[in-house]
Order: sequence, then structure tokens, then C-alpha cells
Amino acid sequence: MTAELYGIAASDGIAIAKTYRLESPSLEFDKKSIDDPALEIERFHTAIAVSSEELELIKDQAEMQIGPKEAAIFGAHLMVLSDPELIGPITEKIENDLVNAEFALHEVSDMFMNIFASMDNDYMKERAADIKDVRNRVLAHLLGVKFPNPGLISEKVILLADDLTPSDTVQFNPEFIQGFVTEIGGRTSHSAILARTLEIPAVVGVKKLMASLSDETMLIIDGIEGKIIADPTEEQIELYKKRKIDFEDRKTALAALKDAPSVSADGFKVELAANIGSPKDVKSALENGAEAIGLFRTEFLYMGRDSFPTEEQQFEMYSEVLKAMGDKPTVARTLDIGGDKELSYLDLPKELNPFLGLRAIRLCLEMPDLFRTQLRALLRSSVHGNLKIMFPMIATLDEFRQAKQLFLEEQEKLATENIPFNNNIEVGIMVEIPSTAVMADLFAKEVDFFSIGTNDLIQYTMAADRMNENVSHLYQPFNPAILRMVKMVIDAAHKEGKWAGMCGEMAGEELAVPILLGLGLDEFSMSASSILKTRSMISSLSKAEMEKHTDSILALATAEDVKNYVSQLVDK
Amino acid sequence: MTAELYGIAASDGIAIAKTYRLESPSLEFDKKSIDDPALEIERFHTAIAVSSEELELIKDQAEMQIGPKEAAIFGAHLMVLSDPELIGPITEKIENDLVNAEFALHEVSDMFMNIFASMDNDYMKERAADIKDVRNRVLAHLLGVKFPNPGLISEKVILLADDLTPSDTVQFNPEFIQGFVTEIGGRTSHSAILARTLEIPAVVGVKKLMASLSDETMLIIDGIEGKIIADPTEEQIELYKKRKIDFEDRKTALAALKDAPSVSADGFKVELAANIGSPKDVKSALENGAEAIGLFRTEFLYMGRDSFPTEEQQFEMYSEVLKAMGDKPTVARTLDIGGDKELSYLDLPKELNPFLGLRAIRLCLEMPDLFRTQLRALLRSSVHGNLKIMFPMIATLDEFRQAKQLFLEEQEKLATENIPFNNNIEVGIMVEIPSTAVMADLFAKEVDFFSIGTNDLIQYTMAADRMNENVSHLYQPFNPAILRMVKMVIDAAHKEGKWAGMCGEMAGEELAVPILLGLGLDEFSMSASSILKTRSMISSLSKAEMEKHTDSILALATAEDVKNYVSQLVDK
Repeated sequence: MTAELYGIAASDGIAIAKTYRLESPSLEFDKKSIDDPALEIERFHTAIAVSSEELELIKDQAEMQIGPKEAAIFGAHLMVLSDPELIGPITEKIENDLVNAEFALHEVSDMFMNIFASMDNDYMKERAADIKDVRNRVLAHLLGVKFPNPGLISEKVILLADDLTPSDTVQFNPEFIQGFVTEIGGRTSHSAILARTLEIPAVVGVKKLMASLSDETMLIIDGIEGKIIADPTEEQIELYKKRKIDFEDRKTALAALKDAPSVSADGFKVELAANIGSPKDVKSALENGAEAIGLFRTEFLYMGRDSFPTEEQQFEMYSEVLKAMGDKPTVARTLDIGGDKELSYLDLPKELNPFLGLRAIRLCLEMPDLFRTQLRALLRSSVHGNLKIMFPMIATLDEFRQAKQLFLEEQEKLATENIPFNNNIEVGIMVEIPSTAVMADLFAKEVDFFSIGTNDLIQYTMAADRMNENVSHLYQPFNPAILRMVKMVIDAAHKEGKWAGMCGEMAGEELAVPILLGLGLDEFSMSASSILKTRSMISSLSKAEMEKHTDSILALATAEDVKNYVSQLVDK
Repeated sequence: MTAELYGIAASDGIAIAKTYRLESPSLEFDKKSIDDPALEIERFHTAIAVSSEELELIKDQAEMQIGPKEAAIFGAHLMVLSDPELIGPITEKIENDLVNAEFALHEVSDMFMNIFASMDNDYMKERAADIKDVRNRVLAHLLGVKFPNPGLISEKVILLADDLTPSDTVQFNPEFIQGFVTEIGGRTSHSAILARTLEIPAVVGVKKLMASLSDETMLIIDGIEGKIIADPTEEQIELYKKRKIDFEDRKTALAALKDAPSVSADGFKVELAANIGSPKDVKSALENGAEAIGLFRTEFLYMGRDSFPTEEQQFEMYSEVLKAMGDKPTVARTLDIGGDKELSYLDLPKELNPFLGLRAIRLCLEMPDLFRTQLRALLRSSVHGNLKIMFPMIATLDEFRQAKQLFLEEQEKLATENIPFNNNIEVGIMVEIPSTAVMADLFAKEVDFFSIGTNDLIQYTMAADRMNENVSHLYQPFNPAILRMVKMVIDAAHKEGKWAGMCGEMAGEELAVPILLGLGLDEFSMSASSILKTRSMISSLSKAEMEKHTDSILALATAEDVKNYVSQLVDK
């Protein structure tokens, strides 16, 4: 029966395809006595063979999609599968104890996992995790339950999941993944941002999604309205096919603006930049007419691996981006992990409130060697393009001074070693913590630029976790408090002759752009897919006109008031 | 060997006593076959008898300390112990299976716990928790390990613990608990606040405390310096006995200020108020010269129970406080649960970042019936004294308007029912979220007063969890960003002819008081034990003089700069 569900529109576009539920299957089983061990061992070997075949495919797929280094993990999994030290004891147990393969597999792998996990050695601990992954895959095959793997999807589907982790999404093949729908997350969750980067439609935060929809249900995603339709009628399918074509047409029309300048109706020039997560995103940024990379999230180089990237590996990645961008600026943000972003090889303390904990620059200042390696790699890459560097999660001037000091020290070392680097790199900060917005006047004397990170700035200013559905009504980009802080930052920058940008999702929002233009924002950095739309919008707006409304907007009481006010302005 | 450890000075004073470690013992045991079931059953009955005796004592103690309603939980535990449906199967199992009492107890109680826990009924779920508590106590006696219980301590000791929960501290008998030291927590943790309320010395955040100190170690706590000395020398004991006397003398001298007005050297009058958590704290507030209750944390009435307090129960509690305070104002803060404060009978969603989640007014607006009951109880009690009401965690004007609307509706209902209440109650808000501080000018038009909650305001403004040791260096009351926000709030209030108070720990800090006086703060609310010291300090400060320094202080760059500046001012 046709059913409509609503969520948050996370990425534009329309998709129509069957659903594919991405979920961990139940791997429960009973211990059983068996009569025919040979048959049971045969069953076990079949499950191993199917698992190997699967892993080979995933490995090939991952090598193509993300590169051989990142795919190495699946090689490690394959080695576990063919390890006689693990397989031998399992078949012996089936034979000697006359127990079912599930039980034998579970017991033996548990023993090895416990041994490895108890070793005080990170490498061995990871082996325990490898065994667990492989064990679950084989167990699923023994039990005949589906073990979903996004890397193996080979037909056009719409993914359904509670939430997507970075390790799920790293395997996505946009050829087959037509879009996705998640039960949790908001417009600024990683999966939402990824959807916009890949330019596939997505709706997130759909309550009761997984309980409502089964596998292989025909589904329409309307990523513009934030709606999904399950088991649509023929009429609905026709309607949305037409809308999909309209959407593509509009996209084509916007594409004509690719090489146009970003100028308001009254001639004020701004910079429209793209947020990227890896070198492979540069192509889409340039195709969408980005004049700069306003946020290069370097932490993605650290993820989906099993050890820290070396200076050399980082140098190559950064250089690749800078070369591709040529003269156009690239603002690299130094490592931002902690919070909801974990590294499998870095054992961070568990925190009660990770968003208020040890993350980003805080962690880098606690682990200066890690930070110095990144700074060196960035500095060395700077000869290949137009690099700027910024530090995330700066809360105090002390932190900026410390980070800048480490940067200067690495510069000096490189100079002593006669290694070339650009001596005039601009060093700025993300403004994403309220204290820094309020102190922007003093920061502006010491930093080269500001980039306002609205995603975090909003969550801290409103004390509302941006991933928490319970308080999503308080995550208010248009709350006048946020706009006042943005104004403090822009004014402070201009007073000292510096520039101010914004790299949060807000920079590309239809109702926010007029306000930000009026406030004098210099650089707007967003998902590549929003750039052309924003360029078109800015060309139709008068900065002088918007400026006139700034004081009135900042004197409004609520986010609703602001949205109504700007809607009326834009509609005129 | 004498050893000194350092932590955070959480509550003034000196204590010298033996340590008492408050920790969960290991309750591991092996399953054993036994030969003599009668002997084993005898052993089991002895453990039950000892446990009953203990629980009777705890119950009596809790009834005296906190009242019969809160002590009821121990009555429930006693009922479990004498329940033949539980005890019968255990002795049967010992007899039939010839297993040790530990194993029989564990198996049978586990079975009952699972049955109860799986029921979709909160009452039964709690029975599962009761059984677990009782099971662990009996198990400890069977195993001959210590099962610590703060309510049973009957000699003078210093408590050592990882952390203290509200349910530990609710049983404290200050006659015996000379002070405490914890491994985690900061100056604003609940245990630290409790220590100041009880006026016992405490040092918190002592790293490696539990690994370093064993039970019954002679210990000195210096709650003034934030230091502890284990196995002190005779000389040290003598020295600290003397310091303890000096400290008591200074306290006596301050006591003379009990009825003095709170006036600066140049004649500016402020109000010095106390923060309280329950009616029994009023006595200490008045003894310490409080001119008002600046913060009555009503959530404590909801804790240590197994269901919501009724309107009648709340009415009685509120009336008790108001009657005791007479004409002096009492500012009651409506329910602030969620975050780190949980209620056993309210199943709140687990959140990744509870401090940024569904708590306080957010929860009350989601559960209006709960909130209306409290508002009615408060309104009815208002005829017994000088009541003001404030809402916690207000982030937007919408929230204040909604809460105020519910308040007005309850007023109207009472009027219709001819139930008396004060028609002129001031209704204000806590300012503890950055958005509210930044929007204070607009809030000031609608609220009757502000009370700045610095504990939370600092943690959100700096994006640093105040309970997290990893980022405690960023929890900066003296960061100029905080002071600027405080100024915004005070100025906004005065512009609209309203008053502004502060009920965070900052209001009683030696270096903060001069700044706050200069900024024009009207009301300072703090732990009762800090009031007399603050009154003495204010009498020696000139407001006009401090005002002159305000601009210079707000233009400083770092918290360190502010502390140095004010230290020099005060030293003059």
C-alpha cells in the first residue's frame, strides 16, 4: 500500500528504485549435536568459500573506488579466512565434539579474539576485530541470513539504514546507489553532506523508517521536499519521473553559470567555494564552478585506514588537491577528529559528551607530533598551489597561539633543511565556538582570516546536539543570536583588514544567502552541488538593499520571525 | 610513606581522619560442587541474616537523615530478602544440585531479574533492580568481601571514591563523614556542591586516587589548597590541626557578619543569596547570613524516589522553604532533569551528548502535565512567602513564551477554583545558554529577571564539558568571552528596569566578585558557606573603582590576563 513518510531534505533530487536495507542481521544460533561431522565440515567449507568470493569482490570494488591502500583491510580479512591456525581447530572441534559448525566457529574464533584483544598491542587488537568481522560473515552464510555490504551492490537501489557510518559510505558506488534514506541524522550529518557531494538525493531523520519499510520495496525519494513514497501508484511514478527530468533541466540551466563570476546585482563580488573531503571531490567542485576550496576536511585522509598516514602520504594527497586547483585557493583545515569522528587505530578516552570533549585542535595540541607531521606535509605541499591553513575548534587565543607556534617551528625546520615551501601561507581559524565569536575583535588582530563553521557554532550557541532528533527544533540557523555572532565575526575581520568566510551548510541556504550578503560575508563555502544555485541567487540580489535590512533582522526575536522577514524580501 | 596528591579545591576546610574507600567490590566466584547441603544452606541463611540487619540499620539511618518516604527503598530491599518465592528456590537448588550458595543465589536471582526486567512495566523493572542490589549484598557476605555503604559509616572517616552519585550522598551523615576526596569531578560537580552545602572539606579530580590509597590510611584533606596528604608525619598532623583551628576561627569571625547588610565600601547594596537543594538546606543558608534563596533546585524533590512527587507533596516542600524564609525572596527553579541528572522512574532516551540534549525546560515543554503539576504546586505555595520562579535552559524566546503561557493557564485555573495564590510572582529565566545571553536585550522586555547560570554558560560558550577532565583547561570562568556575555545580560536587564543575578559557582569566587560588582550584578547566589566571606570581601571593595576597570578587563585577550589583572587590583 502506498505510504508517505517525511524527514529532513538532505540532498536535492529525485530517485525512484527498489529499497536495500543496510542492517546487521541477527546471528543467533543454538548449539546442536550432529551425527555426520563430514557433512557439517563440508557445510562450513562452503560458507568459507562463499565468504572468500564475496570478500574478493569487495576488495576489487574498494580498490577501484577508494584505492589499494584503503582496500588493504579486506586483504587482511581474506588472510583470516585462509588461516589454517584458525580453520584447523574449528573442523577438529566439529569432528571431536560432534557440534554444529556455527558453535565450533563461534567458540574457536572467540578464543582467538580474546587472546588477541587482551594483548597490549594495537596491531593485535585490530586482528581481533578482523576475526570478528570475518566470523560474522561466515556465520551469516551458515545461518543463511543476509549479510549486507554496500560495496557489493550491483543494481540500482535506494539504501535504507538507521544511520550510515563513514566506513559504509566510503564503499559507495554512485552508479548503483541512487539515493538513501536514514532514520537518524540531520542536514549536517556526515551522510547528508556526502549525499550532496555525490549529488545523489537523500532524506534523513525519517522516524520509524526501518520498522515501516522492508527490502525491495519500490520507493520514490523526493530530496527537495524531504519526502519518501513507498509502493507509489503508477501516477505517482509518472509524476516523479517528470519532476526528475525538470530537476535535471534546472541543473543544466545552472551549469551555464559555471564560469561566471559571483557578483551581486549591484556589483559586489564574493567568492563561492566548495567543501571537500578528499582529492577525488575536486573534480566535482570545479565542474560546479567553485572559485576555491573553502574547506578541505583533511581528517578523511586519516579514516578507513589502520594507522596514521605518513608525512609522505599526506604530502601526496595535499599536493594532488593543490595541483588540481591551480591558482584557486584551497583552505585546508587541520585534523578534526574526536567528537563523532573516531579513528580505529587511535584509542581516545570515552567521553560522556564527546561534542564538548577532546577533539580537533584540542587533541592536536595534546599530540603535537601528530600535528607537526600534518603541518610539515601541508607546508611542503604549499609550493604546488594556493594553500591556506585553518585550525578547527579554536576556543581561546591561547590555543591559536600554541598552534601557530608549532606551525612556525615546522616552517623554521623546513627552512633549515632547505626544503621548499610557500613563506606567505595565510593561517586562519574556524569560528565554531561561541567564545571565539564573542572574542572575534581580539582574534582578528592575530589570525589571517576567519571561516565561520555554522554547523558547530549553532549547536554550541543553542546547546543543541545537531545529531539529536529530540532537540532538532532548537538547532536554529536563523536564530538571531547566530546572526548576531556572524555579524560580530565579519565586522571584526573587516576592522582589521582581514576576510571572513563561512563553511557551514548555512552558506548555501536560500534564505541565509541574502542575510549573509547584507552582513558583508566575503566567502561562501558549501557543498559543490549548491554553488551554481547560489551564484544564480546572488546575481539577483542587491547587496546595498540587503545591508539596509540588517539592523531590522538582527532586532527580531525568533528564528521564525527572521525566516518570515527574509521570505518576504526574497519574494518581492 | 607520606605522600601528597593534588586535586581541585572543592570545599573549604581541613579534615584529618582515616580513609574509607567507597567502591563496588568484585563479586566473582566459581561454581563449586558441595558435599554438605545443610551446611551450605546454613551459610546462605547467615548471609541473609547479616544483610537484613545491615539493611534495617541503613533504613533507620536514611529515615532520620532524609525522611521516611525516601527510605522506603530499603524497606523494599528487606522485603526481597524475606520473600519465600526467591529464597525457597535457592535453598532447593543447593539441596538438589549440590552447588555452592553463591552459584544457587546467582542463578535463581538472575532468572527472576530477567523475568522482571523483560516486563513492559516500570514497576516490575524496578523490582529487578531491587533484586540485583540485594543479591549483590548477600553475595558479598557469602564471599566475605566488604560491601561499602555510606549510610552505615559510624566512625569519623574521610571518604575516597571514583565519584559520588546523588544516591550515595543522600545518605551522608555529616557527623561521621569528615570530608571526601574523589578521582573525577570538578568544582561544580554535584558532590563538590554538596560538600560546600554540608560544610565539609573536599578535594576532587585527584588523578590516580583510588590506585594510590588504600582503606584506613591516615589522611589530611586541605580543602583550601586542594591538597591531600597520606600517612602524614607527626609534624604535619600538628601543623594541620593548627590550621584547622585557624580556619574555624576565621569562620567564627565571619559569623559576626551574619546579619550585616551586603554593601560595598562606597555604599552600593547587593543581595547575597544561597543556592539550596532541599528544605533542610534553608537552616544553613540563614545561619550563613543569606538574604535570599537565589536558586532552589527543585529537581532534588524528584530524586531518590520511585515515582513523581504529587502536587500535594511538592506543595508541602515548597511551602516549607517559603515559610522558613519568611519575607526573604526564594527563587525556585523549575525541574532541571536530563543531562547528567536521571530519574529512575522516567525512561529518557539515551543521548550521545546529554548536555546538548533533551533536558530541563525542553523536557518540561515535552511533558506539559508534569510541568503543570509543578507550576500549580509552586503557585499554591506562593501564599506562604516571597516566591519567584525561573525556568532553566531557556535557549529561545519561543520557549520562554510557551513556559510562561502554561504558568498563566495554571494561574487562571486556580483562580477559577478559588484556590489562593500570589498574583504578582516574578517569572524569570536562567541565562545559561549562549544564544540567550546574546539575545538578552529582547528577553529583558519579557522576563521579570535574569539569573546567570555560569556553570552551564561556561561549558557551552567554551564547548567544554564541565565534568570532563580532558578539557578542564578550557572550562574558563575568567575567559573574557564569559565576562562579555555577563555584561550583555546585566546591561540588558538594567535597560528594561529588571534585575540580574548569578547563581553559578562563579558568584562566590574571590577574583570574580570584584569584576561582577563592577559590572553591576544585583544578586550573587552561591553555596551558603561562601556568603559571609563574600560579604566581607564586598564591604572592602569600591563599586565605582571596579567600574572604572570594566572596559580594560573586557578588552583583555585571555583568562590568564584577566586573573592577573584582578589579582593586582585586589592586592592593592
